[in-house]
Amino acid sequence: MITSPDNEKLKLIRKLRDRRHRDREGLFVAEGEDLVEAAAAAGVEPELVLVAGEDVEPSLLDTVSALGSGTRIVGVYRQRWSDPARPVCVYLDAVGDPGNVGAVIRTAHALVEGTVVLGSGCADPYSPKAVRATMGSIFAQPLARAPIQSTPAPRVALSAHGGRPQTRLEPPLTVVLGAEREGLPAEVLEQCDEEITIPLRSGGAESLNVAAAAAIALHDINRQVRERTWR
Amino acid sequence: MITSPDNEKLKLIRKLRDRRHRDREGLFVAEGEDLVEAAAAAGVEPELVLVAGEDVEPSLLDTVSALGSGTRIVGVYRQRWSDPARPVCVYLDAVGDPGNVGAVIRTAHALVEGTVVLGSGCADPYSPKAVRATMGSIFAQPLARAPIQSTPAPRVALSAHGGRPQTRLEPPLTVVLGAEREGLPAEVLEQCDEEITIPLRSGGAESLNVAAAAAIALHDINRQVRERTWR
Repeated sequence: MITSPDNEKLKLIRKLRDRRHRDREGLFVAEGEDLVEAAAAAGVEPELVLVAGEDVEPSLLDTVSALGSGTRIVGVYRQRWSDPARPVCVYLDAVGDPGNVGAVIRTAHALVEGTVVLGSGCADPYSPKAVRATMGSIFAQPLARAPIQSTPAPRVALSAHGGRPQTRLEPPLTVVLGAEREGLPAEVLEQCDEEITIPLRSGGAESLNVAAAAAIALHDINRQVRERTWR
Repeated sequence: MITSPDNEKLKLIRKLRDRRHRDREGLFVAEGEDLVEAAAAAGVEPELVLVAGEDVEPSLLDTVSALGSGTRIVGVYRQRWSDPARPVCVYLDAVGDPGNVGAVIRTAHALVEGTVVLGSGCADPYSPKAVRATMGSIFAQPLARAPIQSTPAPRVALSAHGGRPQTRLEPPLTVVLGAEREGLPAEVLEQCDEEITIPLRSGGAESLNVAAAAAIALHDINRQVRERTWR
């Protein structure tokens, strides 16, 4: 039973709150029974698991939790990175909110086969908040860090304004989504084959959250895939 | 210039972090220029606005911020509550995460006309995190607190599993969404006219986040509305 805050395992978990340490070690932390079970269900072996009251004093485990008190179990896992792969890539440009990054990973995992590609300026998908938002999909959804040039064509940019109205989205393709406020920068749009916009009602909110836009686009792709299968 | 932490305005803002105080006073706080501007754009007058460096010492304003440091402006507003109204109600049952409640409000405001109805067990839409997630829609989207019985029929429950595959959703209707883990309880399902499920790919995540499911369903409704208009 770990009873000292200077224990090396606790120190490692504490350090992994910091992105630089996660990048350097290639590790990340998953907190809570749901996530540790999701890892096991996906066949991902932990590097290390600590259970409160068994391996470590509960109050000590609380001190290394990044998500608030009451965590009963914490696992450390190795980050997995892939190359962008078909049939459906989701490319995120400068999506800085970890909750949004995690939500897109979960939605992609639920709806399409392929890779979620983190472009520059994105929150780390292996940060505690992003991992939590994936609800376990972090252990199964292929992820890549890559420039947009390395994603499969055609590339379809989803813009809040000015694109042609969204119609059918047929794989293979890369769906390109940007940060909420700034939209997609010119150097990203230049790499895209077309630009579409999800039609909104008039007089309402001016834009959708990036995770909501991703859900709508990926649902549409999933529908095309299912219709093809049935034909 | 406010220089004392005991100032009554600062005390009010601090108290409004607490749901009981928000409920009792019928007020809420919006932090940051984007939200204060969204209020003005929606024609909503603040009860009170404090600008750092003009009305109050910046370090003091930081101490009343619920969302972290660096807030330059804070507004206090009156809560607005409506009755559930057509054509599209979104009824949330026990959605406890304020970020999800806020995200659904923003998506509803962007895509459909009607009311977002908070059922029992929902996070307060006027909590700081929910207000932030609405990105300003909190000032324009009609909200209600009401039992499901008071929402317009037909009521369509969106379940993670076991409903008929989602097809066309035509207004007027109420879309009924539940908490992520538990799904909709029997007493809510009993009040629904049908139960549908958004089809997922096999082998992926087992469910969608409630805000993602709402985006997909409300986008589908918006498409029906636009197609009708064009006919």
